[in-house]
Amino acid sequence: MDSHPTQLDKELDSLKKNLIHMAVVAEAMIDQTVKELVRRDESFISNVPQEEQELNRLQLQIDEQVLTLLATRQPVAADLRFVVASTRINNELERIGDLVINITENARTLLSQPPLKPLIDIPRMAELVGKMVRDSVQAFIGGDVTTAQAVIMMDDDVDALKEQVLRELLTYMMADTRAIERALALILIARHFERIGDHATNIAEDVIYFIQGRDVRHPRMQAGGETS
Amino acid sequence: MDSHPTQLDKELDSLKKNLIHMAVVAEAMIDQTVKELVRRDESFISNVPQEEQELNRLQLQIDEQVLTLLATRQPVAADLRFVVASTRINNELERIGDLVINITENARTLLSQPPLKPLIDIPRMAELVGKMVRDSVQAFIGGDVTTAQAVIMMDDDVDALKEQVLRELLTYMMADTRAIERALALILIARHFERIGDHATNIAEDVIYFIQGRDVRHPRMQAGGETS
Repeated sequence: MDSHPTQLDKELDSLKKNLIHMAVVAEAMIDQTVKELVRRDESFISNVPQEEQELNRLQLQIDEQVLTLLATRQPVAADLRFVVASTRINNELERIGDLVINITENARTLLSQPPLKPLIDIPRMAELVGKMVRDSVQAFIGGDVTTAQAVIMMDDDVDALKEQVLRELLTYMMADTRAIERALALILIARHFERIGDHATNIAEDVIYFIQGRDVRHPRMQAGGETS
Repeated sequence: MDSHPTQLDKELDSLKKNLIHMAVVAEAMIDQTVKELVRRDESFISNVPQEEQELNRLQLQIDEQVLTLLATRQPVAADLRFVVASTRINNELERIGDLVINITENARTLLSQPPLKPLIDIPRMAELVGKMVRDSVQAFIGGDVTTAQAVIMMDDDVDALKEQVLRELLTYMMADTRAIERALALILIARHFERIGDHATNIAEDVIYFIQGRDVRHPRMQAGGETS
Protein backbone atom coordinates (compact mmCIF):
# COMPACT_ATOMS: atom_id res chain seq x y z
CA MET A 1 0.00 0.00 0.00
CA ASP A 2 1.43 3.41 -0.88
CA SER A 3 1.60 6.34 1.52
CA HIS A 4 -1.75 7.71 0.37
CA PRO A 5 -4.26 4.94 0.63
CA THR A 6 -7.23 5.31 -1.69
CA GLN A 7 -10.82 4.97 -0.59
CA LEU A 8 -10.76 1.47 -2.09
CA ASP A 9 -7.71 0.58 0.01
CA LYS A 10 -9.47 1.78 3.14
CA GLU A 11 -12.58 -0.23 2.37
CA LEU A 12 -10.57 -3.36 1.59
CA ASP A 13 -8.76 -2.86 4.86
CA SER A 14 -12.02 -2.66 6.77
CA LEU A 15 -13.19 -5.85 5.05
CA LYS A 16 -9.99 -7.61 6.10
CA LYS A 17 -10.36 -6.46 9.69
CA ASN A 18 -13.90 -7.78 9.84
CA LEU A 19 -12.85 -11.16 8.44
CA ILE A 20 -10.01 -11.43 10.97
CA HIS A 21 -12.45 -10.48 13.69
CA MET A 22 -14.77 -13.31 12.59
CA ALA A 23 -11.87 -15.80 12.67
CA VAL A 24 -10.82 -14.68 16.16
CA VAL A 25 -14.37 -15.05 17.46
CA ALA A 26 -14.82 -18.47 15.81
CA GLU A 27 -11.57 -19.77 17.24
CA ALA A 28 -12.46 -18.51 20.73
CA MET A 29 -15.81 -20.32 20.48
CA ILE A 30 -14.07 -23.59 19.58
CA ASP A 31 -11.63 -23.18 22.44
CA GLN A 32 -14.33 -22.45 25.01
CA THR A 33 -16.45 -25.38 23.89
CA VAL A 34 -13.66 -27.89 24.17
CA LYS A 35 -12.78 -26.54 27.63
CA GLU A 36 -16.40 -27.07 28.63
CA LEU A 37 -16.23 -30.68 27.40
CA VAL A 38 -12.91 -31.55 29.02
CA ARG A 39 -13.48 -29.82 32.36
CA ARG A 40 -17.20 -30.61 32.39
CA ASP A 41 -18.01 -27.02 33.27
CA GLU A 42 -20.68 -25.08 31.39
CA SER A 43 -19.36 -21.73 32.57
CA PHE A 44 -16.72 -21.92 29.81
CA ILE A 45 -19.43 -21.49 27.19
CA SER A 46 -21.26 -18.60 28.82
CA ASN A 47 -20.10 -16.20 26.06
CA VAL A 48 -20.78 -18.57 23.17
CA PRO A 49 -24.33 -17.39 22.39
CA GLN A 50 -23.21 -13.75 22.17
CA GLU A 51 -20.21 -14.74 20.08
CA GLU A 52 -22.46 -16.56 17.65
CA GLN A 53 -24.55 -13.38 17.35
CA GLU A 54 -21.36 -11.45 16.75
CA LEU A 55 -20.49 -13.76 13.85
CA ASN A 56 -23.95 -13.27 12.40
CA ARG A 57 -23.61 -9.50 12.67
CA LEU A 58 -20.17 -9.52 11.07
CA GLN A 59 -21.31 -11.75 8.22
CA LEU A 60 -24.09 -9.34 7.42
CA GLN A 61 -21.80 -6.34 7.68
CA ILE A 62 -19.28 -7.94 5.30
CA ASP A 63 -22.05 -8.73 2.79
CA GLU A 64 -23.10 -5.10 2.84
CA GLN A 65 -19.50 -3.92 2.50
CA VAL A 66 -19.00 -6.23 -0.49
CA LEU A 67 -22.13 -5.06 -2.27
CA THR A 68 -21.34 -1.40 -1.62
CA LEU A 69 -17.74 -1.81 -2.66
CA LEU A 70 -18.64 -3.59 -5.90
CA ALA A 71 -21.27 -0.98 -6.73
CA THR A 72 -19.25 2.14 -5.95
CA ARG A 73 -15.54 1.28 -6.37
CA GLN A 74 -15.66 -1.26 -9.20
CA PRO A 75 -12.54 -3.12 -8.12
CA VAL A 76 -10.68 -5.13 -10.77
CA ALA A 77 -8.26 -8.04 -10.99
CA ALA A 78 -6.92 -9.24 -7.61
CA ASP A 79 -9.09 -6.77 -5.66
CA LEU A 80 -12.22 -8.01 -7.40
CA ARG A 81 -11.34 -11.61 -6.64
CA PHE A 82 -10.63 -10.73 -3.01
CA VAL A 83 -13.95 -8.96 -2.60
CA VAL A 84 -15.98 -11.77 -4.16
CA ALA A 85 -14.14 -14.35 -2.06
CA SER A 86 -14.93 -12.36 1.09
CA THR A 87 -18.64 -12.98 0.75
CA ARG A 88 -18.00 -16.70 0.55
CA ILE A 89 -15.47 -16.84 3.36
CA ASN A 90 -17.70 -14.90 5.76
CA ASN A 91 -20.34 -17.53 5.08
CA GLU A 92 -17.96 -20.34 6.04
CA LEU A 93 -17.07 -18.56 9.28
CA GLU A 94 -20.69 -18.01 10.16
CA ARG A 95 -21.36 -21.74 9.69
CA ILE A 96 -18.53 -22.56 12.05
CA GLY A 97 -20.42 -20.61 14.69
CA ASP A 98 -23.53 -22.68 14.01
CA LEU A 99 -21.52 -25.87 14.41
CA VAL A 100 -20.15 -24.75 17.77
CA ILE A 101 -23.73 -24.21 18.88
CA ASN A 102 -24.53 -27.78 17.78
CA ILE A 103 -21.57 -29.03 19.80
CA THR A 104 -22.81 -27.26 22.92
CA GLU A 105 -26.18 -28.97 22.42
CA ASN A 106 -24.60 -32.42 22.28
CA ALA A 107 -22.40 -31.47 25.24
CA ARG A 108 -25.53 -30.97 27.33
CA THR A 109 -26.27 -34.71 27.03
CA LEU A 110 -22.74 -35.52 28.17
CA LEU A 111 -22.61 -33.14 31.11
CA SER A 112 -25.92 -34.43 32.45
CA GLN A 113 -24.41 -37.91 32.87
CA PRO A 114 -21.22 -39.36 34.39
CA PRO A 115 -18.17 -39.16 32.12
CA LEU A 116 -17.93 -42.03 29.63
CA LYS A 117 -14.18 -41.80 29.14
CA PRO A 118 -11.36 -39.24 29.31
CA LEU A 119 -11.41 -37.09 26.18
CA ILE A 120 -8.15 -37.13 24.25
CA ASP A 121 -8.78 -37.24 20.50
CA ILE A 122 -11.66 -34.76 20.50
CA PRO A 123 -9.58 -32.00 22.18
CA ARG A 124 -6.87 -32.74 19.61
CA MET A 125 -9.40 -32.36 16.83
CA ALA A 126 -10.57 -29.09 18.35
CA GLU A 127 -7.05 -27.74 18.56
CA LEU A 128 -6.33 -28.68 14.97
CA VAL A 129 -9.51 -27.19 13.54
CA GLY A 130 -9.05 -24.01 15.61
CA LYS A 131 -5.64 -23.60 14.04
CA MET A 132 -7.05 -24.35 10.60
CA VAL A 133 -9.65 -21.58 11.00
CA ARG A 134 -7.02 -19.06 12.10
CA ASP A 135 -4.49 -20.05 9.44
CA SER A 136 -6.98 -20.17 6.57
CA VAL A 137 -8.19 -16.64 7.23
CA GLN A 138 -4.61 -15.39 7.74
CA ALA A 139 -3.73 -17.01 4.42
CA PHE A 140 -6.59 -15.17 2.76
CA ILE A 141 -5.66 -11.81 4.25
CA GLY A 142 -1.96 -12.25 3.50
CA GLY A 143 -2.46 -13.81 0.08
CA ASP A 144 -0.40 -16.72 1.36
CA VAL A 145 -0.95 -19.81 -0.76
CA THR A 146 1.60 -21.92 1.15
CA THR A 147 -0.32 -21.54 4.40
CA ALA A 148 -3.57 -22.31 2.59
CA GLN A 149 -2.04 -25.52 1.28
CA ALA A 150 -0.88 -26.45 4.80
CA VAL A 151 -4.47 -26.03 6.04
CA ILE A 152 -5.71 -28.41 3.37
CA MET A 153 -3.10 -30.98 4.47
CA MET A 154 -4.17 -30.66 8.13
CA ASP A 155 -7.67 -31.72 7.22
CA ASP A 156 -6.39 -35.26 6.63
CA ASP A 157 -5.24 -35.41 10.26
CA VAL A 158 -8.65 -34.22 11.41
CA ASP A 159 -10.39 -36.89 9.33
CA ALA A 160 -8.06 -39.57 10.72
CA LEU A 161 -8.83 -38.49 14.29
CA LYS A 162 -12.53 -38.55 13.56
CA GLU A 163 -12.31 -42.13 12.23
CA GLN A 164 -10.39 -43.13 15.35
CA VAL A 165 -13.01 -41.54 17.62
CA LEU A 166 -15.77 -43.29 15.69
CA ARG A 167 -14.16 -46.73 15.94
CA GLU A 168 -13.40 -46.39 19.64
CA LEU A 169 -16.89 -45.20 20.51
CA LEU A 170 -18.53 -47.98 18.52
CA THR A 171 -16.62 -50.39 20.76
CA TYR A 172 -17.99 -48.64 23.85
CA MET A 173 -21.51 -48.86 22.47
CA MET A 174 -21.24 -52.56 21.69
CA ALA A 175 -19.84 -53.34 25.14
CA ASP A 176 -22.47 -51.56 27.18
CA THR A 177 -25.87 -50.29 26.07
CA ARG A 178 -25.77 -47.70 28.88
CA ALA A 179 -22.90 -46.08 26.99
CA ILE A 180 -24.90 -45.64 23.76
CA GLU A 181 -26.42 -42.22 24.35
CA ARG A 182 -23.14 -40.65 25.53
CA ALA A 183 -21.09 -42.38 22.84
CA LEU A 184 -23.49 -41.11 20.19
CA ALA A 185 -23.23 -37.57 21.57
CA LEU A 186 -19.43 -37.82 21.34
CA ILE A 187 -19.62 -39.19 17.78
CA LEU A 188 -21.78 -36.26 16.75
CA ILE A 189 -19.42 -33.81 18.47
CA ALA A 190 -16.47 -35.33 16.59
CA ARG A 191 -18.39 -34.94 13.34
CA HIS A 192 -19.15 -31.29 14.11
CA PHE A 193 -15.45 -30.63 14.71
CA GLU A 194 -14.67 -32.45 11.48
CA ARG A 195 -17.11 -30.20 9.66
CA ILE A 196 -15.45 -27.13 11.16
CA GLY A 197 -12.26 -28.48 9.61
CA ASP A 198 -14.13 -28.84 6.30
CA HIS A 199 -15.19 -25.18 6.45
CA ALA A 200 -11.60 -24.09 7.10
CA THR A 201 -10.54 -26.28 4.16
CA ASN A 202 -13.15 -24.61 1.98
CA ILE A 203 -11.69 -21.24 2.97
CA ALA A 204 -8.18 -22.45 2.12
CA GLU A 205 -9.36 -23.76 -1.24
CA ASP A 206 -11.10 -20.48 -1.96
CA VAL A 207 -7.87 -18.64 -1.03
CA ILE A 208 -5.92 -20.60 -3.62
CA TYR A 209 -8.64 -20.32 -6.23
CA PHE A 210 -9.25 -16.62 -5.79
CA ILE A 211 -5.59 -15.67 -5.31
CA GLN A 212 -4.08 -17.81 -8.00
CA GLY A 213 -7.06 -18.01 -10.29
CA ARG A 214 -6.44 -21.74 -10.16
CA ASP A 215 -8.84 -24.34 -8.90
CA VAL A 216 -7.60 -26.78 -6.28
CA ARG A 217 -11.06 -27.76 -5.30
CA HIS A 218 -11.54 -29.87 -8.37
CA PRO A 219 -8.06 -30.24 -9.80
CA ARG A 220 -9.11 -32.26 -12.78
CA MET A 221 -11.41 -29.47 -13.97
CA GLN A 222 -10.49 -26.89 -16.56
CA ALA A 223 -12.64 -23.84 -16.20
CA GLY A 224 -11.21 -21.89 -19.11
CA GLY A 225 -12.50 -24.17 -21.83
CA GLU A 226 -16.05 -23.87 -20.60
CA THR A 227 -16.42 -20.21 -19.97
CA SER A 228 -13.95 -18.14 -21.91
CA MET B 1 -36.49 -8.87 -20.83
CA ASP B 2 -37.01 -6.57 -23.82
CA SER B 3 -36.84 -7.73 -27.42
CA HIS B 4 -33.14 -6.84 -27.74
CA PRO B 5 -31.34 -8.52 -24.87
CA THR B 6 -28.08 -6.85 -23.96
CA GLN B 7 -24.86 -8.76 -23.49
CA LEU B 8 -25.44 -8.46 -19.72
CA ASP B 9 -28.88 -10.05 -20.12
CA LYS B 10 -27.38 -12.92 -22.08
CA GLU B 11 -24.70 -13.52 -19.48
CA LEU B 12 -27.21 -13.38 -16.63
CA ASP B 13 -29.33 -15.84 -18.54
CA SER B 14 -26.42 -18.24 -18.92
CA LEU B 15 -25.72 -17.94 -15.18
CA LYS B 16 -29.34 -18.79 -14.41
CA LYS B 17 -29.28 -21.81 -16.70
CA ASN B 18 -26.16 -23.12 -15.01
CA LEU B 19 -27.69 -22.70 -11.55
CA ILE B 20 -30.86 -24.51 -12.62
CA HIS B 21 -28.71 -27.24 -14.12
CA MET B 22 -26.92 -27.63 -10.77
CA ALA B 23 -30.24 -27.88 -8.93
CA VAL B 24 -31.54 -30.51 -11.36
CA VAL B 25 -28.40 -32.59 -10.96
CA ALA B 26 -28.45 -32.27 -7.16
CA GLU B 27 -32.07 -33.31 -6.96
CA ALA B 28 -31.45 -36.30 -9.24
CA MET B 29 -28.58 -37.39 -6.98
CA ILE B 30 -30.83 -37.24 -3.90
CA ASP B 31 -33.51 -39.22 -5.67
CA GLN B 32 -31.13 -41.93 -6.87
CA THR B 33 -29.55 -42.29 -3.44
CA VAL B 34 -32.83 -42.76 -1.63
CA LYS B 35 -33.91 -45.33 -4.25
CA GLU B 36 -30.66 -47.20 -3.59
CA LEU B 37 -31.41 -47.19 0.15
CA VAL B 38 -35.04 -48.26 -0.11
CA ARG B 39 -34.62 -50.89 -2.82
CA ARG B 40 -31.21 -51.98 -1.55
CA ASP B 41 -29.78 -51.81 -5.05
CA GLU B 42 -26.52 -50.02 -5.76
CA SER B 43 -27.24 -49.73 -9.47
CA PHE B 44 -29.43 -46.72 -8.72
CA ILE B 45 -26.34 -44.71 -7.77
CA SER B 46 -24.19 -45.67 -10.74
CA ASN B 47 -24.39 -42.12 -12.14
CA VAL B 48 -23.82 -40.35 -8.82
CA PRO B 49 -20.00 -40.01 -9.10
CA GLN B 50 -20.25 -38.38 -12.54
CA GLU B 51 -23.07 -36.16 -11.33
CA GLU B 52 -20.93 -34.96 -8.44
CA GLN B 53 -18.18 -34.13 -10.94
CA GLU B 54 -20.76 -32.26 -12.99
CA LEU B 55 -21.69 -30.16 -9.95
CA ASN B 56 -18.00 -29.40 -9.34
CA ARG B 57 -17.58 -28.36 -12.98
CA LEU B 58 -20.67 -26.16 -12.91
CA GLN B 59 -19.61 -24.49 -9.65
CA LEU B 60 -16.29 -23.57 -11.18
CA GLN B 61 -17.91 -22.35 -14.38
CA ILE B 62 -20.33 -20.15 -12.44
CA ASP B 63 -17.46 -18.66 -10.38
CA GLU B 64 -15.67 -17.76 -13.59
CA GLN B 65 -18.84 -16.31 -15.10
CA VAL B 66 -19.39 -14.19 -11.98
CA LEU B 67 -15.84 -12.82 -11.95
CA THR B 68 -15.92 -12.08 -15.69
CA LEU B 69 -19.33 -10.49 -15.47
CA LEU B 70 -18.36 -8.25 -12.52
CA ALA B 71 -15.14 -7.22 -14.25
CA THR B 72 -16.55 -6.50 -17.70
CA ARG B 73 -20.25 -5.60 -17.31
CA GLN B 74 -20.24 -3.85 -13.95
CA PRO B 75 -23.81 -4.76 -13.08
CA VAL B 76 -25.65 -2.58 -10.58
CA ALA B 77 -28.57 -2.80 -8.15
CA ALA B 78 -30.62 -6.00 -8.46
CA ASP B 79 -28.30 -7.47 -11.11
CA LEU B 80 -25.27 -6.95 -8.89
CA ARG B 81 -26.98 -8.62 -5.96
CA PHE B 82 -28.05 -11.52 -8.18
CA VAL B 83 -24.52 -12.03 -9.47
CA VAL B 84 -22.93 -11.94 -6.01
CA ALA B 85 -25.56 -14.32 -4.64
CA SER B 86 -24.86 -16.76 -7.51
CA THR B 87 -21.35 -17.43 -6.26
CA ARG B 88 -22.72 -18.30 -2.85
CA ILE B 89 -25.63 -20.40 -4.11
CA ASN B 90 -23.41 -22.46 -6.42
CA ASN B 91 -21.32 -23.25 -3.36
CA GLU B 92 -24.37 -24.55 -1.46
CA LEU B 93 -25.32 -26.77 -4.40
CA GLU B 94 -21.83 -28.17 -4.68
CA ARG B 95 -21.92 -29.09 -0.97
CA ILE B 96 -25.18 -30.93 -1.49
CA GLY B 97 -23.33 -33.12 -3.96
CA ASP B 98 -20.66 -33.84 -1.33
CA LEU B 99 -23.36 -34.82 1.17
CA VAL B 100 -24.94 -37.25 -1.28
CA ILE B 101 -21.53 -38.87 -1.65
CA ASN B 102 -21.36 -39.17 2.16
CA ILE B 103 -24.78 -40.81 2.14
CA THR B 104 -23.67 -43.38 -0.42
CA GLU B 105 -20.70 -44.20 1.83
CA ASN B 106 -22.94 -44.85 4.84
CA ALA B 107 -25.29 -46.77 2.57
CA ARG B 108 -22.49 -49.22 1.81
CA THR B 109 -22.53 -50.31 5.49
CA LEU B 110 -26.27 -50.85 5.30
CA LEU B 111 -26.34 -52.78 2.05
CA SER B 112 -23.61 -55.14 3.25
CA GLN B 113 -25.86 -56.34 6.09
CA PRO B 114 -29.48 -57.52 6.41
CA PRO B 115 -32.06 -54.70 6.58
CA LEU B 116 -32.53 -53.30 10.08
CA LYS B 117 -36.04 -51.94 9.48
CA PRO B 118 -38.23 -50.69 6.65
CA LEU B 119 -37.26 -47.13 5.80
CA ILE B 120 -40.12 -44.66 6.04
CA ASP B 121 -38.97 -41.38 7.58
CA ILE B 122 -35.66 -41.17 5.71
CA PRO B 123 -37.32 -41.39 2.26
CA ARG B 124 -39.73 -38.70 3.45
CA MET B 125 -36.79 -36.54 4.47
CA ALA B 126 -35.18 -37.12 1.08
CA GLU B 127 -38.34 -36.14 -0.75
CA LEU B 128 -38.69 -32.98 1.30
CA VAL B 129 -35.09 -31.86 0.90
CA GLY B 130 -35.17 -32.64 -2.84
CA LYS B 131 -38.16 -30.33 -3.16
CA MET B 132 -36.42 -27.70 -1.01
CA VAL B 133 -33.40 -27.73 -3.33
CA ARG B 134 -35.57 -27.37 -6.44
CA ASP B 135 -37.80 -24.71 -4.94
CA SER B 136 -35.00 -22.63 -3.44
CA VAL B 137 -33.17 -22.35 -6.76
CA GLN B 138 -36.42 -21.66 -8.62
CA ALA B 139 -37.14 -18.93 -6.07
CA PHE B 140 -33.74 -17.42 -6.76
CA ILE B 141 -34.13 -17.51 -10.54
CA GLY B 142 -37.67 -16.17 -10.40
CA GLY B 143 -37.02 -13.64 -7.65
CA ASP B 144 -39.83 -15.31 -5.74
CA VAL B 145 -39.65 -14.46 -2.05
CA THR B 146 -42.85 -16.35 -1.16
CA THR B 147 -41.40 -19.64 -2.40
CA ALA B 148 -38.16 -18.93 -0.56
CA GLN B 149 -40.12 -18.43 2.65
CA ALA B 150 -41.96 -21.71 2.09
CA VAL B 151 -38.60 -23.49 1.77
CA ILE B 152 -37.51 -22.07 5.11
CA MET B 153 -40.73 -23.36 6.70
CA MET B 154 -40.19 -26.85 5.25
CA ASP B 155 -36.89 -27.11 7.07
CA ASP B 156 -38.79 -27.45 10.35
CA ASP B 157 -40.47 -30.59 9.03
CA VAL B 158 -37.11 -32.00 8.01
CA ASP B 159 -35.69 -31.32 11.47
CA ALA B 160 -38.70 -32.96 13.11
CA LEU B 161 -38.28 -36.06 10.96
CA LYS B 162 -34.59 -36.21 11.81
CA GLU B 163 -35.38 -36.10 15.56
CA GLN B 164 -37.92 -38.89 15.08
CA VAL B 165 -35.39 -41.02 13.19
CA LEU B 166 -32.80 -40.42 15.91
CA ARG B 167 -35.14 -41.39 18.74
CA GLU B 168 -36.35 -44.53 16.98
CA LEU B 169 -32.84 -45.69 16.10
CA LEU B 170 -31.56 -45.11 19.62
CA THR B 171 -34.24 -47.53 20.77
CA TYR B 172 -33.03 -50.12 18.26
CA MET B 173 -29.45 -49.67 19.47
CA MET B 174 -30.39 -50.07 23.12
CA ALA B 175 -32.42 -53.21 22.41
CA ASP B 176 -29.81 -55.09 20.42
CA THR B 177 -26.08 -54.38 20.13
CA ARG B 178 -26.06 -56.12 16.73
CA ALA B 179 -28.20 -53.23 15.48
CA ILE B 180 -25.69 -50.55 16.53
CA GLU B 181 -23.59 -50.28 13.38
CA ARG B 182 -26.58 -50.19 11.04
CA ALA B 183 -28.54 -47.83 13.29
CA LEU B 184 -25.55 -45.48 13.43
CA ALA B 185 -25.27 -45.55 9.62
CA LEU B 186 -28.96 -44.62 9.37
CA ILE B 187 -28.55 -41.83 11.94
CA LEU B 188 -25.67 -40.38 9.94
CA ILE B 189 -27.68 -40.66 6.71
CA ALA B 190 -30.57 -38.80 8.34
CA ARG B 191 -28.15 -36.09 9.44
CA HIS B 192 -26.75 -35.78 5.92
CA PHE B 193 -30.27 -35.33 4.54
CA GLU B 194 -30.94 -32.77 7.27
CA ARG B 195 -27.81 -30.89 6.21
CA ILE B 196 -28.99 -30.92 2.59
CA GLY B 197 -32.13 -29.24 3.91
CA ASP B 198 -29.92 -26.72 5.70
CA HIS B 199 -28.14 -25.89 2.45
CA ALA B 200 -31.47 -25.37 0.67
CA THR B 201 -32.52 -23.15 3.58
CA ASN B 202 -29.32 -21.15 3.20
CA ILE B 203 -30.14 -20.65 -0.47
CA ALA B 204 -33.67 -19.53 0.42
CA GLU B 205 -32.31 -17.09 3.01
CA ASP B 206 -29.82 -15.72 0.50
CA VAL B 207 -32.68 -15.31 -1.99
CA ILE B 208 -34.60 -13.15 0.45
CA TYR B 209 -31.51 -11.23 1.53
CA PHE B 210 -30.20 -10.57 -1.95
CA ILE B 211 -33.59 -9.92 -3.55
CA GLN B 212 -35.10 -7.83 -0.85
CA GLY B 213 -31.93 -6.41 0.60
CA ARG B 214 -33.35 -7.58 3.89
CA ASP B 215 -31.78 -10.08 6.21
CA VAL B 216 -33.87 -13.03 7.35
CA ARG B 217 -30.85 -15.00 8.41
CA HIS B 218 -30.41 -12.95 11.54
CA PRO B 219 -33.68 -11.04 11.86
CA ARG B 220 -32.65 -9.13 14.93
CA MET B 221 -29.68 -7.59 13.15
CA GLN B 222 -29.70 -4.20 11.50
CA ALA B 223 -27.02 -4.00 8.86
CA GLY B 224 -27.56 -0.38 7.93
CA GLY B 225 -26.37 1.09 11.18
CA GLU B 226 -23.10 -0.75 11.00
CA THR B 227 -22.05 -0.16 7.46
CA SER B 228 -23.67 2.89 5.93
